[in-house]
Amino acid sequence: MRFSQTFIPTLREVPADAVVVSHRLMFRAGMIRKLSNGLFAYLPLGLRSFRKVEAIIRQEMDAIGALEIKPSVVLPGELWKESGRWQTFGDAMLRVKNRLGTDFVVSPTAEEAFTSIVRDELSSYRQLPLVLYQINTKYRDEVRPRYGVMRGREFVMKDAYSYNIDDASLDRSYQDMGRAYRKVFKRCGLSVIAVKADSGAMGGSGSEEFMVESEVGDNTLLLCRDCNYAANVEKAACKPDNAPAVATLVPIEKIATPEVKTISELCAFLKTGAKAFIKTLIYRAINVELDLSSAPGSSKLAKQRPAPEAPAVYPEAFFAVAIRGDLDVNEQKLAALLKASELTLASDTDVERITSAPVGFAGPVGLIMVPLIADETVVNMNNAVCGALAKDLHYAHVACGRDFTPWLVSDVRTVKAGDRCPVCGGDLYEKKGNELGHIFKLGYKYTRSMRVSYLDENGVSHTPTMGSYGIGLDRTLASVIEEHHDDDGIIWPMTIAPYQVILVPIKYEGAVKETTDRLEQELETAGIEVLLDDRNERPGVKFKDADLIGIPLRVVIGDKNLALPQASVEVKRRGEKEARVIAVSDLVAALAGCVMRERMALHA
Amino acid sequence: MRFSQTFIPTLREVPADAVVVSHRLMFRAGMIRKLSNGLFAYLPLGLRSFRKVEAIIRQEMDAIGALEIKPSVVLPGELWKESGRWQTFGDAMLRVKNRLGTDFVVSPTAEEAFTSIVRDELSSYRQLPLVLYQINTKYRDEVRPRYGVMRGREFVMKDAYSYNIDDASLDRSYQDMGRAYRKVFKRCGLSVIAVKADSGAMGGSGSEEFMVESEVGDNTLLLCRDCNYAANVEKAACKPDNAPAVATLVPIEKIATPEVKTISELCAFLKTGAKAFIKTLIYRAINVELDLSSAPGSSKLAKQRPAPEAPAVYPEAFFAVAIRGDLDVNEQKLAALLKASELTLASDTDVERITSAPVGFAGPVGLIMVPLIADETVVNMNNAVCGALAKDLHYAHVACGRDFTPWLVSDVRTVKAGDRCPVCGGDLYEKKGNELGHIFKLGYKYTRSMRVSYLDENGVSHTPTMGSYGIGLDRTLASVIEEHHDDDGIIWPMTIAPYQVILVPIKYEGAVKETTDRLEQELETAGIEVLLDDRNERPGVKFKDADLIGIPLRVVIGDKNLALPQASVEVKRRGEKEARVIAVSDLVAALAGCVMRERMALHA
Repeated sequence: MRFSQTFIPTLREVPADAVVVSHRLMFRAGMIRKLSNGLFAYLPLGLRSFRKVEAIIRQEMDAIGALEIKPSVVLPGELWKESGRWQTFGDAMLRVKNRLGTDFVVSPTAEEAFTSIVRDELSSYRQLPLVLYQINTKYRDEVRPRYGVMRGREFVMKDAYSYNIDDASLDRSYQDMGRAYRKVFKRCGLSVIAVKADSGAMGGSGSEEFMVESEVGDNTLLLCRDCNYAANVEKAACKPDNAPAVATLVPIEKIATPEVKTISELCAFLKTGAKAFIKTLIYRAINVELDLSSAPGSSKLAKQRPAPEAPAVYPEAFFAVAIRGDLDVNEQKLAALLKASELTLASDTDVERITSAPVGFAGPVGLIMVPLIADETVVNMNNAVCGALAKDLHYAHVACGRDFTPWLVSDVRTVKAGDRCPVCGGDLYEKKGNELGHIFKLGYKYTRSMRVSYLDENGVSHTPTMGSYGIGLDRTLASVIEEHHDDDGIIWPMTIAPYQVILVPIKYEGAVKETTDRLEQELETAGIEVLLDDRNERPGVKFKDADLIGIPLRVVIGDKNLALPQASVEVKRRGEKEARVIAVSDLVAALAGCVMRERMALHA
Repeated sequence: MRFSQTFIPTLREVPADAVVVSHRLMFRAGMIRKLSNGLFAYLPLGLRSFRKVEAIIRQEMDAIGALEIKPSVVLPGELWKESGRWQTFGDAMLRVKNRLGTDFVVSPTAEEAFTSIVRDELSSYRQLPLVLYQINTKYRDEVRPRYGVMRGREFVMKDAYSYNIDDASLDRSYQDMGRAYRKVFKRCGLSVIAVKADSGAMGGSGSEEFMVESEVGDNTLLLCRDCNYAANVEKAACKPDNAPAVATLVPIEKIATPEVKTISELCAFLKTGAKAFIKTLIYRAINVELDLSSAPGSSKLAKQRPAPEAPAVYPEAFFAVAIRGDLDVNEQKLAALLKASELTLASDTDVERITSAPVGFAGPVGLIMVPLIADETVVNMNNAVCGALAKDLHYAHVACGRDFTPWLVSDVRTVKAGDRCPVCGGDLYEKKGNELGHIFKLGYKYTRSMRVSYLDENGVSHTPTMGSYGIGLDRTLASVIEEHHDDDGIIWPMTIAPYQVILVPIKYEGAVKETTDRLEQELETAGIEVLLDDRNERPGVKFKDADLIGIPLRVVIGDKNLALPQASVEVKRRGEKEARVIAVSDLVAALAGCVMRERMALHA
């Protein structure tokens, strides 16, 4: 391809809103342009690399027997009402009414669409496992889209869904997919961290996220210095670090704490550390699936179904959570425990109603209005301080089990750097990460609510179990740039490069032009993708652009080297400082070898 | 690919709503499934053929130097407000508000998106011509989607847009595109009729539609038996067929016509033919761009701009149209003449107000309330009958030019079978057709309203002119089936076949299995796409499915032929009755030759 014949509008300036490297470089290299906040157009250069990511993903999906289909992007709202997600998905889902008043959704994910297809076609266990995927447009209505295509509103996702007869089969599909994902990211030249993850609004458990490290990552990861433990903070656990309970119990005592509300004020007032306190927070949860029939204060709550076959939920419920004073409640863990679609701290009014006290004096002792959930750290505290459900009063010498009994005990703490690895006890440290892929075992959530069934070898009807597996293509591409660049621009891995070789004639005329044109033809015949910079620009401008757009191999054709006893050109690997002079007669073989080697290296 | 490992749910029954062959066969062959009215999912078999159509289109676009980009599918409403189409596009455009209240559009076409990208990057005449395209999801909110993917709500379109410095350059891009389209359709095995077309809501003039014949076609085509004239009825012209004007003029005369309203009643009453009448119809037009400053009865009308840079239009205007009594007004021609976005017959109330008479007595003589447009057929009528703008009264001996003067004269008649070809005078006949592709010269409509400019070699700023070129992929694929099928199923052209060869072992075991597996490997090594029917089904079931899904070459492997002195198999071309017995050792070469020949034949 000739530079003058394609459309690569490179830029020296950086748009003001481009704060991450990949956004800046994709924009400057003429790979993308912005259409609106969070909406982009890939230009020819960007689309070439995008298609390479797409092809790698498609090959690895096909290799594990996944079958590609193409449902529409605009999906009937009806399906989402069947699964119940019409109510529970939230505002990230773009809902549309057409001219006839029918509800549609611009697909944010496609569990329902795939499951509806499978439901209609599935009859026998012989058809399972069935693994279907699409590589298609998705839309999520981000409130604050940013970082270019890293967090856009519209994006392309490879989403796959497996339908399996049982957990063992699901685990095989899940493991296949995990291996395929590792290959995909390796072929893209990406270093990913595979972490255990909360599966969030998708439901189910047993999941793994594929993360890349990123300063502006949406996720906080906890990694162990000593073993390979890696977890999203949303789900990370740690070894207990409680001081042992005291041997001699002191009776509970009510103490006046005028004008003291926060833990730190209380610490100062009582001259003790935050670890001695039991902090109690009141939460409001929406669409709670957890059974509350035995829970204190919940006898009046009634479950409802958001859709006929969807699981019944409590539309709204309140909870108290007790945790050691120096720790934070992890709301994702708490939401997962409650199986709630949404969780927020209760309003002051609700807190006052539930604790019969002003905000700041909640505590577990005598709290009967709502179920009490205690973090594991609270269980062996027996000489603690906590709010006394009355203005300016606290309890001291509180013992869990004696002075209050939690309705549920669970791990709901937020693990932090410095906590101890739950596997080996080593030191945990934090990194910011971006999620590129996610695999998870969904279980029966959709197959039950949408009534999918198959007959086993004895003619008995069963519900299949299901897995869901996604990779964001745009984000994967941007992450390749995040990992492979320098101050001059992108440094593409050979597998993702829009062109593998750029030919830069010093001046595109005479013998130089003739040699350049011949080399272009010979390289293309050898199956190499070539960009020829035929523009009437100074060599410096061409070199700068070649570096910016990151083509792995640069060949400079000039009179001086052509005039050598053996006519030669200069070859430079992008990212390396030194150029080599290579005989024109050896060039095609040398470059073909290099392209092949570098692609294979990522394949292995 | 093994039949048991893919997902081809073939069916014997036909869904009730599938009334056209392509819909029935795509459904029965397991190529597509319906998600909702007008929304489909391509299953693996359908997607393979779909991707082949896509690849052919991409190759032919690239071959003429068009550059592929990928804008988002969800587009900012802002751009459509700039061009004015937010107001004028109508209900087929799916409009969405997101959670922040921002307007978006699910792309029905992309003139605005492309033009906004070009606007920001264009500076010099050296960048032109620039031809950009995408192959991407589109949505149009059909009120009555039907015929499967032939007329769905969501579909994939290849839409290209050219930006040119002048009409000559635009014409070159247009001609290149026309040639590329002919190649695309030929490679898909389609017989297309290229017709002159009205360019409809897209605006501009100079356009060609690529049609395929179809019983259920949306379009009526007029074709000449003697030359290659072909036109959409929306734009078809014909040779004049008027009786010559009479030599001796008779004075106009008012005649009482009690209880007579329709032309046929009037014919009976006056004992004459419909050709002697001037029929006058009152139309209401919306968003009229035509200048009416000199038009009768229009002095109070004022132009408004639907968007700051969009052309000014009259939001509403009324017109009278006079035409010979035996003819029909062609509303598309009339709308194109008025440059109106919408056109309907005026309501009875409006007719009564404008003609000062009950409905049925409109006529050109003395009509001053609205501009009078006369069809060309009316101009030399000088002894005609027409309504007299009063109840139960008509005029006789009316002469155009003497008794009334049209404000505009134009060709607004609907041409019908039996009219004479405008080129050669031959007989015109009608066909129903479906539009697969459309190329048209848009001119300055978008580049002006969206303020695109470039500098010429002298540094003078100009607005580029523009062309727009579309092909519907789903419809093209369905049309291939419409043209290539028999009672047993699809007969794929080699270029579009999902697999080129199907291997059908009579019983997939022992020596038959061994030979089948080896042939599969050898054929795939030879670059041939093979489907192996490894199912444990009766041969009859496998043959029926092979015919239904239309694989061009069927190889049957059975013990009898393998036991021949030279081990053989049976090869049958889909659509032919006779099978040939071919030695196993010759099979791969024979099939490879056949695949190559058939693909090349469509390439030529």
